[in-house]
Order: sequence, then C-alpha cells, then structure tokens
Amino acid sequence: MFAQRIDRLTSSLVRDILAAAQRPEVISFAGGLPADEALFRPDATALQALPDVWQYGQSEGEWGLRELVAQRVRALGLACTPEQVLILNGSQQGIDLVAKLMIERETPVLVEAPAYLAALQAFRLFGAECLPVAVDPLAGADLAQFEAQAARARLAYLTPTFQNPSGYCYSDAERDRVAATLDRHDAVLFEDDPYRDLSYEGPAPAPIAGRLHRARWVYQGSFSKTLSPGLRLGYLVAHPDLMPPLIRLKQAADLHSNRLSQHLVMQVLANGALDRHVASVLPLYRARRDAMDAALRRHLGGHASWACPWGGLFFWVRLAGALDTMALMREALQRDLALMPGEAFFQQAAGASYLRLNFSHAAPERIEAGIARLAELLREQLPEAA
Amino acid sequence: MFAQRIDRLTSSLVRDILAAAQRPEVISFAGGLPADEALFRPDATALQALPDVWQYGQSEGEWGLRELVAQRVRALGLACTPEQVLILNGSQQGIDLVAKLMIERETPVLVEAPAYLAALQAFRLFGAECLPVAVDPLAGADLAQFEAQAARARLAYLTPTFQNPSGYCYSDAERDRVAATLDRHDAVLFEDDPYRDLSYEGPAPAPIAGRLHRARWVYQGSFSKTLSPGLRLGYLVAHPDLMPPLIRLKQAADLHSNRLSQHLVMQVLANGALDRHVASVLPLYRARRDAMDAALRRHLGGHASWACPWGGLFFWVRLAGALDTMALMREALQRDLALMPGEAFFQQAAGASYLRLNFSHAAPERIEAGIARLAELLREQLPEAA
Repeated sequence: MFAQRIDRLTSSLVRDILAAAQRPEVISFAGGLPADEALFRPDATALQALPDVWQYGQSEGEWGLRELVAQRVRALGLACTPEQVLILNGSQQGIDLVAKLMIERETPVLVEAPAYLAALQAFRLFGAECLPVAVDPLAGADLAQFEAQAARARLAYLTPTFQNPSGYCYSDAERDRVAATLDRHDAVLFEDDPYRDLSYEGPAPAPIAGRLHRARWVYQGSFSKTLSPGLRLGYLVAHPDLMPPLIRLKQAADLHSNRLSQHLVMQVLANGALDRHVASVLPLYRARRDAMDAALRRHLGGHASWACPWGGLFFWVRLAGALDTMALMREALQRDLALMPGEAFFQQAAGASYLRLNFSHAAPERIEAGIARLAELLREQLPEAA
Repeated sequence: MFAQRIDRLTSSLVRDILAAAQRPEVISFAGGLPADEALFRPDATALQALPDVWQYGQSEGEWGLRELVAQRVRALGLACTPEQVLILNGSQQGIDLVAKLMIERETPVLVEAPAYLAALQAFRLFGAECLPVAVDPLAGADLAQFEAQAARARLAYLTPTFQNPSGYCYSDAERDRVAATLDRHDAVLFEDDPYRDLSYEGPAPAPIAGRLHRARWVYQGSFSKTLSPGLRLGYLVAHPDLMPPLIRLKQAADLHSNRLSQHLVMQVLANGALDRHVASVLPLYRARRDAMDAALRRHLGGHASWACPWGGLFFWVRLAGALDTMALMREALQRDLALMPGEAFFQQAAGASYLRLNFSHAAPERIEAGIARLAELLREQLPEAA
C-alpha cells in the first residue's frame, strides 16, 4: 500500500529510548536536550510586543529575521544576503528540504561515520547511497577517505563543529582541505552547524562553506540549542542557485514557518539577548561537561577511552572491548539509565563499540551517579577490561 | 545537479500572483486569505497563560490538543482516538506527509478536476500520475468517472466540502456513493476539509471518511481558516494502520509542531472560543459572498455562469467563451486587479475557461469595484458574449 521509501523508514530508536527515559527515576544521557535551566523563556513583555502575526506569512520567512540571520552568518565569513536566508521550522526541516532537492534513488551522499542519526534516516528515506568518511574525536577526520568519497558524491553532509555524536570539531587545516576537495569535485556541501555557539574554550574555526570558491553549498543553524527547542526555529542559507527550488520546496512543505516564534527570535537577535543568553548558559554546560569527564575518569578508566569535547552536548565513548551496545542500552534502561548505543550512528558496522553520552540535561550529581551505574554495568559485561 | 523531482517542481503561480497582489492599490480576489477583521488574535491573557513550552515536544503533538481534536472529529462521525491525531505545521504539511507515505513515480492518484493547486504540485513533485474526476458546482461530481478512476487509484485526494477552487459541496448521496466505491476498490481516501466550519447555510454533510467500512483513510483539518493562518496549525487523523509511518515521517520532517501555537489553540478549543469566533465571522463572510454574487449578477450576467457557494471562500466562474485565463490574469494585474486563472487548477486542459474569485479578503465596496473592472476587461476580450 505504501510508497517503497516507507520500507526504508527505520523505526526511530531515539524516539523509543527517549520515551523510556521520560520516567523521572531514569538518569538520562540519551537525548540531546538543553538543560531545563538553560532554556530561553520569552517574558510577558516579549509576548506582548508581538506584532500582528496572524495572517499568512512569506515562505522565505519574515524579512527582518532574514536580515538579522544574514548579518550573523556574514560575521562567520560567508557571503550572505537576506535573500539567501530561508527560515525553517527547526533545522530538521532543512534536512528534509535539502534531501528533496538533491536525493533520489542511489544518489551518492557523503556522510560522516558516525553521523547525525536523523539526517541518515532522512537521506535513506529518499534513497541515498551513503558514502561514509570516518570521524573520530582522537584521530580526526579521515581526509584520504574524504577525498575518495567526494570524487563520487553529489552531496556531502557534514557537521564539522562539535559533531553529534562524536563531539569532534574540524581544525582550520581540515576545513581548508575539505573545502578544496569539494571545490575540485564540485560536490554540494551541506554544512549543519547547530552547536557552534556552545563552545566552552573559545570560538570554533569558521564554517567550511565560507572557504569554498566553486562548489555550491547549504549552511544551516538552529535556535533550539542556543535559545529553546520549543520555539522550533532554524534557518538555512544557501548558494543563490539553490534558493529558488528550496523556497518552492518550503512552500510545498508547510507554506511558511511559525510567525510568533519568528518574531520572538527577531526581538532576541535585535536586542542582543541571544548572545547574553548563550554567555549565561556556557558556564552551566562547561561545569556539566567537566563533571562527566571527571566521573568517566573516576569510574571508567580501564573500560573506555574518550576525548573531552570542547563544545556541543556529547561525549563519544569508545569501549575497551567489543560489545553489543544495543543490548547494553536495553540492560541499562532496566537499571534506570538511558544512553545511546553507538551502532545507531553508523551506516555500516563500525570496528569498535561506542556510546553517546549527553552531558547537558542531567544535573552534576545525577551525572556522577549515572556514570557509576554505567561502570558497574560495563564491569559485568566486559570483565576482561576491568 | 538536482534530483529529478525538481524538474516537476513547477513555479508556483500562486506565489507570483500573490506577490503582485501585495500592492495596496490592487483589488485582490486571488488569494485564499481570511479577512484581516476575521483573524483570531490571542490576547495578552492567552499569551501569559502559556505553560512552559520551551523544551522539545512530542512529534505527534501535545496530548491535550490531540484529545480536543479527537473529540471534535468524533462529533463529525469519525471513529477517532487521540492516538490517531497528528498535529501539523499547517494542513499543507499533511499533504507533504501523505505524499511521502503513498506516492512514488507513477503512483495513480485520483484528484478532482479542478483541484487544490498546492496538492497537485506536491503530488507531482513525488511523481504521481494524477487521474482526474470532474467536479462542477452546477453539475456536481462525475460519479461514473469516479468509479472508473477509483478502480486504478491507490490514493484518492478529495476536498468534498466547499472545495477550493470550485466551492462545491458533495451531497450526502454523493458522499455515500464515493465511500462505497472506495471500499470496493480499497483505495486510500485522503479527505482534506479546511473549509467545513465556514458554512453559511447550516452544517455541511458529514465527512466521507466516517462513511467508510473497509478502505483506509486520512482526514485533515486546519485552524488557518477558522482562527488564523499565522498560528500555522492543522491536524490530520488517520486509520490506525497509517499512524506509525506518518508519525515517523513527521519526526523526520521537523521533529514536532510549534508548541506555542499548539497551546494557544488548545486554550481556544477548551474554552469554546473557537466556536464563538467562527460564529462571529460567518456574518462577515456571508455578507461578502452576497456582495460578490450581487456584483457578478450586475456586471457579468452575459459573460459568465456560476453557483453561489454556500460555504468556503471562493466563487468559481465559468466564462461564456473560450479565453486564455493566464493572459487574462496578467492583463487584469496591469489594471490593479488580481484573480486566479482556472487553468492552474487542472491537471489536463479543461473544456471551458474559469476564474477563481476569493470573496473573503476584500471589503464589499472593493468587491463591487473589482467585479466591475473584471466585467470591463471581459467585454473587451469576449465581445461576442456581451
């Protein structure tokens, strides 16, 4: 009865784990949720300052917001006019629109291994052949593999800044090499950059998109991590050639994005509150990251290796032995601990076993207790590594 | 560079006409915009009553809203639990999700002729073969043709209640026959019902979806026409078999719908304000409809035929002679009059020339002036019919 693509619509593991993790007694490292204390909550004044947003709006987004986004993106080194900005119902929608624009059956798409799960799912839904390039927080991005895959790829999807799940941030030199490779092969770059502002040790290197000379590109960002997910607002900016079909695809998807949220974000960008809010959140997240790093050292020393991420929301932990991390996840849930199995983030089986651990949502004492619980579980499952 | 579907992404005529119609001197019958006076504007109290909506929400929508929608839909005769409700970022999103669920290259899809333009565009984008069934406000739906096309179709997309563009409302007998035919052929019904509440002569007949015994179905509605488009909120309800993949498709599209809007609509449904608001809007729209009907009689008597619609937002005017309505539309715009050419709503060329005229957005005196201007234009273009 359904279209064939529905056979490729894998059950969303994240949904299932997050549903299980709702129980208050569960310590959850599974999601990618901002801390409740870190959410930006527009006050009564902000809500009352909303203009008359009740009629239909533009598919592209509110002009004032497009101007403010263009300004921010230009500050990151991208040539960007307001006409190149498309406001999204969250940056997940950008993945859907770019997939519609570029991907049909067997379109070769370069993806990181590991990669953002919901992007892999969307690309597979449209029939992509995913070409993996290894990224590791300790070893970096495999640029030789990147070169080989870019020669075949039509689209390259990268989250080079504090990647979900690996936490890895490409260096300036890696970004330059990636850009030069894409220029040479004329593959379209899709750079997904939601974590850039959550940087705990100074600014991250400038986006790859601004380093391109020839290849076309889409660059996207989100207000879910810096303000709040409930606003459901993100944006993409793109090479001028890509804008007309992307705007039509947006119109066909939902006519336009929510105007209340657009004006709330517009206020916050215009009056500087976004930057003030992010600055106020960084110490909280830095402390939680440090708490998780310390807990990992204390409890998991012999069982795992990891790099302490300097941005984003995740630790990417490599286990000392081979383990079925899906089974581990289920066993952990039995003990009121939620985590993400590494398998989920790979298109093909990886050579090692990983866990993704979110550090932003749980309070430090819960982080300590959760990692202790994880260590206990690993000692049972990986006795040889104890 | 792009996926092949982009070749089928026709430039959106509506966008272009609506953009041109923005000039204040233009009298516009082109859009489907609610009257500005009829927009529901949540007040400060409503905005201050928003709960803490700033964290990620559920892909399905807020549970309280799903309950309230299920209750309304049950009152229309559909078996519907809250679990069968999916909250949408406007009902255009339902078209995108159902197209993804059901349509791939050459999937036969029964559509009305004329049909809602943005649905035709979305179905073509995914590669549908559209099978037309004639619908005419004077002659009704062609049920013999329906029978023949339903035998081939996998999906049947219908807007049986005050259709956009024709304004036609299927009778109880037509609805029963359509349901029986779909049951016999086991085609999935996609019933799009955004205009139901805008009924100026008493309640419309119950939905077709509630008359099915065997065929699966999706039924969708919108708060854009009854409250305000800026809320960007709609919903679908579906046969239980269709819900799991639809929810996963929603998650892949944008994770979830805007939570501010969901809670604003939840308030309005819970406290009865929706029904009070609709009741207050009906006299305004009825008056505008009557103004347009009178103006058409006064100025277009010899040039055209139409049925005065008893609901919805449009007159569907059949011209007395054959005319290129695209050229007519361009000529009209030169004279500061915006209208929708009938051609746009047909998959294949129709046997006659039509215009779609919206009566909800312009004030009565502008309606009179605009129809006079249209008559003048038609007298030049169709002198034989004068």
